[in-house]
Amino acid sequence: MSILDLTHLLTEDMPVYPGTPRPRFKDDFTLEKDGFREKKLELYGHIGTHIDAPAHILKEGKTLDQLPITQYLGKAYVFDFANSEKEIKVNHLESLKARFEEADFILVHTGWDKFWGKEDYFTGYPLFSVDAVKWLASFNLKGYGFDNISADAPATTTMPIHKEILGQKAIIIENLTNLDQIKNQTVTFQCLPIKIAGADGSPVRAIAITD
Amino acid sequence: MSILDLTHLLTEDMPVYPGTPRPRFKDDFTLEKDGFREKKLELYGHIGTHIDAPAHILKEGKTLDQLPITQYLGKAYVFDFANSEKEIKVNHLESLKARFEEADFILVHTGWDKFWGKEDYFTGYPLFSVDAVKWLASFNLKGYGFDNISADAPATTTMPIHKEILGQKAIIIENLTNLDQIKNQTVTFQCLPIKIAGADGSPVRAIAITD
Repeated sequence: MSILDLTHLLTEDMPVYPGTPRPRFKDDFTLEKDGFREKKLELYGHIGTHIDAPAHILKEGKTLDQLPITQYLGKAYVFDFANSEKEIKVNHLESLKARFEEADFILVHTGWDKFWGKEDYFTGYPLFSVDAVKWLASFNLKGYGFDNISADAPATTTMPIHKEILGQKAIIIENLTNLDQIKNQTVTFQCLPIKIAGADGSPVRAIAITD
Repeated sequence: MSILDLTHLLTEDMPVYPGTPRPRFKDDFTLEKDGFREKKLELYGHIGTHIDAPAHILKEGKTLDQLPITQYLGKAYVFDFANSEKEIKVNHLESLKARFEEADFILVHTGWDKFWGKEDYFTGYPLFSVDAVKWLASFNLKGYGFDNISADAPATTTMPIHKEILGQKAIIIENLTNLDQIKNQTVTFQCLPIKIAGADGSPVRAIAITD
């Protein structure tokens, strides 16, 4: 059994979605002053490798603590789309029907994680067409994961892909990394959120378990 | 496969270690104002169900991001000590040698989680003797978990049990819950921390996986 960490490190100068304040990790209790170290963590719920709950966008959507814990683990198919194309269409997916039938998650490898920390991270990544996400609805996936900043286009205000995925009662995982190491594979995937009451999102330690 | 959640819910009025400020989960971005919900999370790193890194207490101790991800998962033996005794001694452990040899973690069931939210939670829980923790050292455990507020006595300033465990390069997990459901069993245990640079501790979503 091998564990692959799919999670970016959270730091005070990390890239965040435009408009989101960066986190602060302050050494409030110190060994010298208090006899122990304890940081105060100040962070928005959708930074780094994180989950979007249906409540992030949908008025009546569930929060993370309202979903069963089984929502956050299962088999994931790592769909490779690190090519020159910019839109994932139904015809890119159709031949993989058997893979999606056995999967709980689709993780989309775009390769954009290599731009983490650079301006290029925020633009130009491939996107699902709405039709492609609608086509995936029949597989009752638990979640859709991405190795880029968002399921939707930069500066979107309507968020059509978020709405379609969350409307399927699936979760979204954004800012994954290392998917290149498991592309075209079906792996055991986990993204357990911290257990905050009413959470519309949560940073997670996402991992893949391979044999 | 069955998943058991060993994690308390984080809320603004949750019990915290005396002297630690309570968390704040503020609805900073709202559906009405911004088109999406996103909370600002303000919390100390050692509230709720959480890990203590060696760096929490030890000057040269490692932070959570310096430990391999395999530190946070493995086989756990759930040691039942929900009785009238107050100190776990070597003679309570000796007959369980074969259990500890196959384990990566010991999780101590004291039953104190039933006092979560009440004053009784903070006092009277059983403690390891230092000798008992020293006896466990030979098993090279990855971690020691507790279903109460601390590995050490209330109001301790010297923290002898923390120092002994963390000195073994093991982690400590505090404020677990639901151990009564798996007492005297060996289970698959996970407590993956969020991936904060330099973290001396982290809230976790701890789970047990049983067949």
